[in-house]
Amino acid sequence: MNVNPLSLASAAEVFDLLRDDLAAVEAEFARQSNSPVEVITEIGQYLLAGGGKRIRPLLLLLSAKCVGFAGESRIRMGAVVEMLHTATLVHDDIIDDAKTRRGRPSANVAWGASKCVLAGDWLYMQSFHTALQERNFHVLDLLITLTQQMVEGELLQIEKLGRLINEEEYFDLIYRKTACLFKVSMQLGAALASSPTGIEEQLGEYGRNLGIAFQIVDDVLDLTATDEVLGKPAASDLREGKATLAVIHALERGTGADREAIRTVLEDGDFSRVKHGTILEILRRHGSLEYAMDAARAYAEAARQSIADVPASASRRALLWVPGYVTSREQ
Amino acid sequence: MNVNPLSLASAAEVFDLLRDDLAAVEAEFARQSNSPVEVITEIGQYLLAGGGKRIRPLLLLLSAKCVGFAGESRIRMGAVVEMLHTATLVHDDIIDDAKTRRGRPSANVAWGASKCVLAGDWLYMQSFHTALQERNFHVLDLLITLTQQMVEGELLQIEKLGRLINEEEYFDLIYRKTACLFKVSMQLGAALASSPTGIEEQLGEYGRNLGIAFQIVDDVLDLTATDEVLGKPAASDLREGKATLAVIHALERGTGADREAIRTVLEDGDFSRVKHGTILEILRRHGSLEYAMDAARAYAEAARQSIADVPASASRRALLWVPGYVTSREQ
Repeated sequence: MNVNPLSLASAAEVFDLLRDDLAAVEAEFARQSNSPVEVITEIGQYLLAGGGKRIRPLLLLLSAKCVGFAGESRIRMGAVVEMLHTATLVHDDIIDDAKTRRGRPSANVAWGASKCVLAGDWLYMQSFHTALQERNFHVLDLLITLTQQMVEGELLQIEKLGRLINEEEYFDLIYRKTACLFKVSMQLGAALASSPTGIEEQLGEYGRNLGIAFQIVDDVLDLTATDEVLGKPAASDLREGKATLAVIHALERGTGADREAIRTVLEDGDFSRVKHGTILEILRRHGSLEYAMDAARAYAEAARQSIADVPASASRRALLWVPGYVTSREQ
Repeated sequence: MNVNPLSLASAAEVFDLLRDDLAAVEAEFARQSNSPVEVITEIGQYLLAGGGKRIRPLLLLLSAKCVGFAGESRIRMGAVVEMLHTATLVHDDIIDDAKTRRGRPSANVAWGASKCVLAGDWLYMQSFHTALQERNFHVLDLLITLTQQMVEGELLQIEKLGRLINEEEYFDLIYRKTACLFKVSMQLGAALASSPTGIEEQLGEYGRNLGIAFQIVDDVLDLTATDEVLGKPAASDLREGKATLAVIHALERGTGADREAIRTVLEDGDFSRVKHGTILEILRRHGSLEYAMDAARAYAEAARQSIADVPASASRRALLWVPGYVTSREQ
């Protein structure tokens, strides 16, 4: 499919298309974060106020619009995918012992790890509780299978910390970490309208490709952006012993000294012996950052191709716009 | 209802009645603990091998038998309630920083807290995944609502640590911590057979009463039994700042010095200033342990009364036997 530039939506157009729905999702999320137990509501509101790109509800809403579904369920399910995402972040931050998230103290720093284990559990349950109201087994199958894959991915990641992994392992990890939820957000939009399997698969495939592109870019930004832009310490992945695509590329093509430098940082979990600047120099010398961005752009293009057969509409135009937004973002 | 002693089953009779089913639940639990991610399977098998009374599957099986349900679902759902219980234990042990469980290192000691946050998540998801196969929304409603109540209960408990709570707060906590899952285990047995609401409610009420009796006894044993019998340090509740029924009784009736001694232990979280023996002496002087056991026996009797209208059967005889077993156990 060759995308005619004129067929692409603008950011303003996409925003106009979704403004009311996204506001409704936000209100629903706030409503759903209310618990009879005060501390849960507090943590919920804190996480909600922390912002985030709300890209998962956005995908779900666009997918639902693509198949002509306009029922209230799309708002509830938009809140569900964001709550589910938030639950994984809360548990991940405990595991990574993260100090900041989106420029503020992470919830585990503000409330302690114990309460956040339970707050994460509660958010998982609340998202299932809300999804259960749909009375749609397919929706529940998608959500539960997804969540299990994400949790398994986090465990796999822990097993690989500090180790040199290959591209195949990297792509499996980012599928589980990000692409899987992007995919299911798209599938859910279609599932609400009981769309034919083919359409749901295509929209899901779009989500999977977009998610991979999104995570590759995220990983490149983690290497190159500043603390201020990221809202957390730069190069957190390296500090946590995580090798991402550009780093794997440099490992495979670098000199013995380059490999040794990268290995040292991954093992040390800090830049005491090898500086952040040294790593960036190695990545630049081998064109590794560009290699990763090329891969992200290829997945972004694959996302566009995935919805070639979806009938033309304002929502499809918006979906064609999203991959370019994702690969050109700077935070 | 006056229970004729002759109508009570013996332990051997109950064991005979359920032997095959409990073995099948065990096999199902082992099967369900298998994950493509090795460390999950390892943790799952470790928890499974740790034993436990399997009282939740036992209740579910008896409840199902009571309503004449003999389908395979009872085995799957028996494994589900035990997996769910295990998931809560894994997260609770992280929160309480427990070192031992059932006489062995707790999973968080053996694998570290990070992996156990995720292993707990995985067990939750696996139990929902298995329950989802029933294609029964009522079953899912019961499970998700239950899990949320349990998680809220744990959070409430953290909020109350080290504080002097009253009986009402105590009963709410043990309802959420234990009785709620006993209740739902009973309800699920009935739900599998799509029993009339009245029967499901009576069986659920039995579970609730039994669960409260069970937890009161557990809390008394925590105060009075030895480390060896408990498989964990004696008086763990006091060490963790948790006031249980006997302690609350002594707080309300004790002298100023008694109250001060109890308050000191709850705040210190150890027996450095006030000895365990001193606390036991206070509890004995006020008849507080007996008061708690009387309460447990009253709930056990209420459990029996709850199933007065359930038609006579071998399973009902077994259910009438369980409360006595629960209140007379020594571990």
